[in-house]
Amino acid sequence: MKFKVSAALQYEVKAPSTLILNVHALRTANQTVLDEKLTIAPYLKAEELNAVNGENRFVRLDIQDTGTIDIHYDATVDNYYEVKDHSKIPEIPVSKFHPSVLTYLNPSRYCQSDMLYRLANNTFGHINNSYEQVFAITDWIYKNVEYLSGFTDSETSAYDTVTQQAGVCRDFAHLGIALCRALTIPARYFTGYAYRLNPPDFHACFEAYLGGEWVLFDATRLIPLNGLVKIATGRDAADAAIASIFGDVSCTNIRVACEYADEQPFEPIYYTRSIFHGISYY
Amino acid sequence: MKFKVSAALQYEVKAPSTLILNVHALRTANQTVLDEKLTIAPYLKAEELNAVNGENRFVRLDIQDTGTIDIHYDATVDNYYEVKDHSKIPEIPVSKFHPSVLTYLNPSRYCQSDMLYRLANNTFGHINNSYEQVFAITDWIYKNVEYLSGFTDSETSAYDTVTQQAGVCRDFAHLGIALCRALTIPARYFTGYAYRLNPPDFHACFEAYLGGEWVLFDATRLIPLNGLVKIATGRDAADAAIASIFGDVSCTNIRVACEYADEQPFEPIYYTRSIFHGISYY
Amino acid sequence: MKFKVSAALQYEVKAPSTLILNVHALRTANQTVLDEKLTIAPYLKAEELNAVNGENRFVRLDIQDTGTIDIHYDATVDNYYEVKDHSKIPEIPVSKFHPSVLTYLNPSRYCQSDMLYRLANNTFGHINNSYEQVFAITDWIYKNVEYLSGFTDSETSAYDTVTQQAGVCRDFAHLGIALCRALTIPARYFTGYAYRLNPPDFHACFEAYLGGEWVLFDATRLIPLNGLVKIATGRDAADAAIASIFGDVSCTNIRVACEYADEQPFEPIYYTRSIFHGISYY
Amino acid sequence: MKFKVSAALQYEVKAPSTLILNVHALRTANQTVLDEKLTIAPYLKAEELNAVNGENRFVRLDIQDTGTIDIHYDATVDNYYEVKDHSKIPEIPVSKFHPSVLTYLNPSRYCQSDMLYRLANNTFGHINNSYEQVFAITDWIYKNVEYLSGFTDSETSAYDTVTQQAGVCRDFAHLGIALCRALTIPARYFTGYAYRLNPPDFHACFEAYLGGEWVLFDATRLIPLNGLVKIATGRDAADAAIASIFGDVSCTNIRVACEYADEQPFEPIYYTRSIFHGISYY
Repeated sequence: MKFKVSAALQYEVKAPSTLILNVHALRTANQTVLDEKLTIAPYLKAEELNAVNGENRFVRLDIQDTGTIDIHYDATVDNYYEVKDHSKIPEIPVSKFHPSVLTYLNPSRYCQSDMLYRLANNTFGHINNSYEQVFAITDWIYKNVEYLSGFTDSETSAYDTVTQQAGVCRDFAHLGIALCRALTIPARYFTGYAYRLNPPDFHACFEAYLGGEWVLFDATRLIPLNGLVKIATGRDAADAAIASIFGDVSCTNIRVACEYADEQPFEPIYYTRSIFHGISYY
Repeated sequence: MKFKVSAALQYEVKAPSTLILNVHALRTANQTVLDEKLTIAPYLKAEELNAVNGENRFVRLDIQDTGTIDIHYDATVDNYYEVKDHSKIPEIPVSKFHPSVLTYLNPSRYCQSDMLYRLANNTFGHINNSYEQVFAITDWIYKNVEYLSGFTDSETSAYDTVTQQAGVCRDFAHLGIALCRALTIPARYFTGYAYRLNPPDFHACFEAYLGGEWVLFDATRLIPLNGLVKIATGRDAADAAIASIFGDVSCTNIRVACEYADEQPFEPIYYTRSIFHGISYY
Repeated sequence: MKFKVSAALQYEVKAPSTLILNVHALRTANQTVLDEKLTIAPYLKAEELNAVNGENRFVRLDIQDTGTIDIHYDATVDNYYEVKDHSKIPEIPVSKFHPSVLTYLNPSRYCQSDMLYRLANNTFGHINNSYEQVFAITDWIYKNVEYLSGFTDSETSAYDTVTQQAGVCRDFAHLGIALCRALTIPARYFTGYAYRLNPPDFHACFEAYLGGEWVLFDATRLIPLNGLVKIATGRDAADAAIASIFGDVSCTNIRVACEYADEQPFEPIYYTRSIFHGISYY
Repeated sequence: MKFKVSAALQYEVKAPSTLILNVHALRTANQTVLDEKLTIAPYLKAEELNAVNGENRFVRLDIQDTGTIDIHYDATVDNYYEVKDHSKIPEIPVSKFHPSVLTYLNPSRYCQSDMLYRLANNTFGHINNSYEQVFAITDWIYKNVEYLSGFTDSETSAYDTVTQQAGVCRDFAHLGIALCRALTIPARYFTGYAYRLNPPDFHACFEAYLGGEWVLFDATRLIPLNGLVKIATGRDAADAAIASIFGDVSCTNIRVACEYADEQPFEPIYYTRSIFHGISYY
């Protein structure tokens, strides 16, 4: 499916600083970047970094001049996902997990799964099937956590959200990840451009490792699950920040867009209990 | 320098479980494993995993039988370190950091550097040189944090230790790492076998990225810094657990040894203020 | 009902210290202390303090000599409680609460009700009746929190227990209190001697203010609710510590007993859903 | 000294609610309220509560009508304080503390002194004199904690502020209190009207119990210490909230004033190291 995505970021630079951006659409076997353009005004050399985890596309800016800086990223992306019936896919025990996923069982800054072990098992442990456990987790989050801007901040973690029960997409994703890991289901953070997200913004959700695949889940229910363009994955938001700022810089504006650009009509996919549909973007 | 290291681990297995061990000496350009042997009694196939971060040597055991399991690891290791004078090595700004180190600036489960920004800057921000900052951090930890077994547990993080001021080597390392990252100095967790550690045990300390090198620091001052055999590095203890247990298994005994096996006499190295010595194991 | 209660406390004193004990049975209109004796060996003058909140009976010991100190408290207590049918008692709005109970709506050290507002309302807010809300809270705690010695410590609070879901009577009480307050139901900590508690120990539970009365609840379900001799009430364990130590003293032994001493046979009372029974000790 | 104080509070009431205000100047032996007036528009009966702790003057409003409500409090207050030289006042051990102050040694919601024991003792334990310890605490806070509006919120506690090192007067007071208690110095929260506070607002600081007296301290250094009119004291902000809201009410405006109304010229008093001056308002 084709999407046109864009991000316009404006920063106020008060002293020479370094900025590391993570807004580029990921290039994978199933996500092709047809064209893309990054413009920076005033002009600045952007250093594309060798991906730290072999994955995310970071760009580093060494900003010497103070003042306003405008960054535009535009891309046309063609990606591909599969919808599988997870009632048919056999579960895999931890002894067979691919080694690369084991790190996604560990607790991380915003996903303290080690502190949620009993809660996760008391609440979801009676469910036999891993897919259904993750579905029940997203359901529980959707019902108990209020989507509320400004309630949380960059220090808020899953351990907070599980009791304070309000937050934004980032917090919903962190809680989903932490609960999965507490049930020995690898889970990772996913950032992307999201079609039909209202108001438009970067979006965060998560992937759970089920039956050997990374399957997308989103406890916010704000978007169709097949309208995403992947920017990054990581252990949590610490790995996939849109911008990491080193210096005296403040963000003064963000504008994000994601339009559908395919000829086929867009048919939104949401999960429904007992259907066991799982979208994998790879 | 040559060391003979060994670890004897005993577990009580109450149900079929998976165990992931991280006790093997790392193989690097500067650390050669001359010989090593892993024995498991009763016999069990050990699966050596492709290293998750291209680094640590995990071994996975799929244990089907309940009862006692004894694991012995023995190795002879030859490693090499350099002591450099960091007063001579120019500092590197974040705009020139090697991309692979950027992840070690991020907060992690046990090193919430994002929450210690002001404290780190108020306490160490006036120090001009990064090496001296890290030295001052280890000094501060040594003076303010009491080495005390049993005070902390596996949930204790740097955010706790900075105020609660007691813990073990793991806690000292986490706090050092968190404070470095809060000062924009990449830092990572280091586990190893440690010569002259008393009582013998696995040891944890940390590396800070200074002048383009990973330099070893240890706020516990319990060991000579040139008596280490590296097992693993990672963002924090979550990445480098000696054993990750999935199932109903409890550890009933640990015995660790590290002997010096070189012909040259061992000359212990400790850091001293204003000498700027930095040991790098690579 | 008559009870014989006793507490034998042994401390090791390493330096001159002050000890404040709170083990005396409370004297109230409905709880008469028929006889009591406090012995301290070696002999020491015990200063009975004017009760801080007009309630609890603190005793202060100024210990000058190091060594072992043995404290015995023995009492025969006759107390009286009422069992009321709370389906018949009209609820009282906060605008009519007795001023003395308002402090028990505030968050306290171990009962951070301000942080559990959404969780409490999401979980129990749909229940119309305050009595039923408190009953549901104790039910929820009983089902989700495992009674487990050694899991928690003196720093553990309701905010921890709500997610970590294990603890002892103190933790069960704190969580019950915090959830009540989050629903605008005043609640306070209750310590006492408990008949049929096994193993014998001091016990903690809580009182909720319902229909103008303080009604006893105990989420542990470890004891009959009419087998208690009240020692103290307070905002949480900080107000009602069995012993507050100022100096270098460690507790080396505690032995507690509570025997039924009435002629009438003891008929244990437990609450049952939909019966609305509430025990008030006044 | 005479002061004219006033508070104008505006609330938007969206549903019938109860409001408990604590804005009245305290009436004590040393603080006389010469005249005062509370007006509420539209008119509403204000119920003055019997003081919960025998101290603070709460007013309860039972608001049935939705809409805007305007509350004005005006008073002329004559108060008296003493400045004593605490180098001359002998220290009192905990065995001689007045029983009423013992509660101010306990940890409370926002002052978790039990978690700061080592930090307090490592940082201030070497100072021999209690007055100097409290002075050093306020000095440390002033130097390390940045006065910053909007950084903290109503959940922020001393345990946060000691590491996060930014906040407002409330946070400065909580941290001062927690550190005092960790050193076995009773300390309590103090709210008042403050002359020369800029911008004008309610103010919070704290009192430490030294040599048998409650001595005022303020780590913000924003005001002269003899320009205060006491509203309330308590264990922390939970005991002395300006307004406690039960229902759907939001504060839409606060305006506070405090003018000097005495004939004598106002001579501001601040503490200076090694002078040992202590102001007590009683």
